[in-house]
Amino acid sequence: MTLHPAIAAVRRGVRAVLAETQPGQRIVVACSGGADSLALASAAVFEGHKAGLAIIGATVDHGLQEGSAAQAERVVGQLAAIGVDETLTARVTVAADGLGPEAAAREARYQVLAEIAERTGAALVLLGHTRDDQAETVLLGLARGSGGRSVAGMRRGFEVFRRPLLDVTRDDTAEACLIEGLDAWADPHNEDPGYARVRVRKQVLPVLEDALGPGVSAALARTAELLRPDMEFLDELAALSLRECAGSDGLSVQALAGLPQALRTRVLRAAAVAAGALDAELAYEHVTAMDALVTGWRGQRWIDLPGHLRALRADGEIRFQPSM
Amino acid sequence: MTLHPAIAAVRRGVRAVLAETQPGQRIVVACSGGADSLALASAAVFEGHKAGLAIIGATVDHGLQEGSAAQAERVVGQLAAIGVDETLTARVTVAADGLGPEAAAREARYQVLAEIAERTGAALVLLGHTRDDQAETVLLGLARGSGGRSVAGMRRGFEVFRRPLLDVTRDDTAEACLIEGLDAWADPHNEDPGYARVRVRKQVLPVLEDALGPGVSAALARTAELLRPDMEFLDELAALSLRECAGSDGLSVQALAGLPQALRTRVLRAAAVAAGALDAELAYEHVTAMDALVTGWRGQRWIDLPGHLRALRADGEIRFQPSM
Repeated sequence: MTLHPAIAAVRRGVRAVLAETQPGQRIVVACSGGADSLALASAAVFEGHKAGLAIIGATVDHGLQEGSAAQAERVVGQLAAIGVDETLTARVTVAADGLGPEAAAREARYQVLAEIAERTGAALVLLGHTRDDQAETVLLGLARGSGGRSVAGMRRGFEVFRRPLLDVTRDDTAEACLIEGLDAWADPHNEDPGYARVRVRKQVLPVLEDALGPGVSAALARTAELLRPDMEFLDELAALSLRECAGSDGLSVQALAGLPQALRTRVLRAAAVAAGALDAELAYEHVTAMDALVTGWRGQRWIDLPGHLRALRADGEIRFQPSM
Repeated sequence: MTLHPAIAAVRRGVRAVLAETQPGQRIVVACSGGADSLALASAAVFEGHKAGLAIIGATVDHGLQEGSAAQAERVVGQLAAIGVDETLTARVTVAADGLGPEAAAREARYQVLAEIAERTGAALVLLGHTRDDQAETVLLGLARGSGGRSVAGMRRGFEVFRRPLLDVTRDDTAEACLIEGLDAWADPHNEDPGYARVRVRKQVLPVLEDALGPGVSAALARTAELLRPDMEFLDELAALSLRECAGSDGLSVQALAGLPQALRTRVLRAAAVAAGALDAELAYEHVTAMDALVTGWRGQRWIDLPGHLRALRADGEIRFQPSM
């Protein structure tokens, strides 16, 4: 009997990620009960047990929807049926501190998953993001207009987290669930046009595929794949440059002026964030205005930055000061 | 009387570009008779004469459409009425040598415009691409999935060419024409859904704006603006690395292996193109396969590249050889 291609694709992604583990280790699989994370959990059990790993199925209850506790319980049952070695439910409270509701929920989810990994001594936490999620992320980043970092999409891994399904389509995860008899949960959030991501999925991508051909989602994901090493390398170089630009009380204008634009703007952004500027709110305009203190100096006053901070030029340096 | 914002925007773009000229120089304005290039020509005459420049209005007849000669004559009349100092019409024959019809026409157009600049001793050739053209270019590049270079869109300038309207919307050029009584030509190509660019303009961008807000075109253009210095800097670094990787008869595998992925893949691509591979047809898969000769060596055979070329690993080098 040959393996169905959808199941094979999901397992292949998981296998590649598990190559970095050692027998005897524990692995957390984050599972919402949606098709992507159920298919992920099933493949993690299959591949993980072959590799001598213990699989912990974890579900996070955001408490954002009515019946979310019941849904979490249902997922726990499904994870047990799939054959995970252990299940865990974590309840989080989503703080609404300036982040949008989506971003706040994501933050809270990652934090609790990292805590679970630490508490259980797990080597990795697997996340179920698919190639379609990646394509949506690229389009959303593109529409923000905040440059390569946004267009580079989601990373394959960071800290303890891994995304084994970034080359797998959402359709494949749904099909894998169907074949394996896993009853995937349709999150009502995924149908709510109040979310930009849902509008991109339901309205934008179908039109893009219609206009430019069925390979668009794959092309968007590949763009991210190609941009990521570029952005990471530039960030590394900028981190080195940041140290070389250090003055007595800020960044040396002379050192900054000697950098190529790609590094200069990154150094300015990194220094601003280190001084307390809010990374997520630091926009193109702020960085451009800071850059003009270096390359277009005509005695400007300070630049106001999000996070109650000012950037200004004084004594041949770019300095950051709290604004009142 | 205050200047209408649309005319002001077009003139501002032209003024910024003309800052690099000297009085007495000649400037070519490429004009198809469309709203963008007519508005450009009008602003070039206004700003150019103020700056002591002579303006040459040039129109290119591709001979691709019936009545294209008559259209070229009409544009010449309009350019004369606008007040250019000289008009020129160039007829080009579009060779269909592997490039698509759009790309071939563009190649031919740029070549004849460069020849006109050389023949007339002009300092610059102005092109009428708008912010909307840039947004379309970014989306088309993104959908190709060929990485940052495509998403970085059109350059503001290269060789003798300049694009003064990359911050100006197409609507502004249309409005500027309306106000100045310039009867813009509606190129039937711009309505032909046989072109991917037209589908992006007519189908994709309106849906994107609807889903993500009216700032999408500006955000796409800004993404290009942010990515361009990144890509140019990486290309410069890769050109240096290419020299450092030179072996006796190819690229040193050891030197390549020491490079970060962002540079290694660029060095491999540049070396392949230098050896005769077709730049436009060299895809992600080719570069990835060449990279695997360095980072995933398990005795692979050669990699076939477009342009009747092979890349292979021998004697600790990556070499390029003609394929039979």
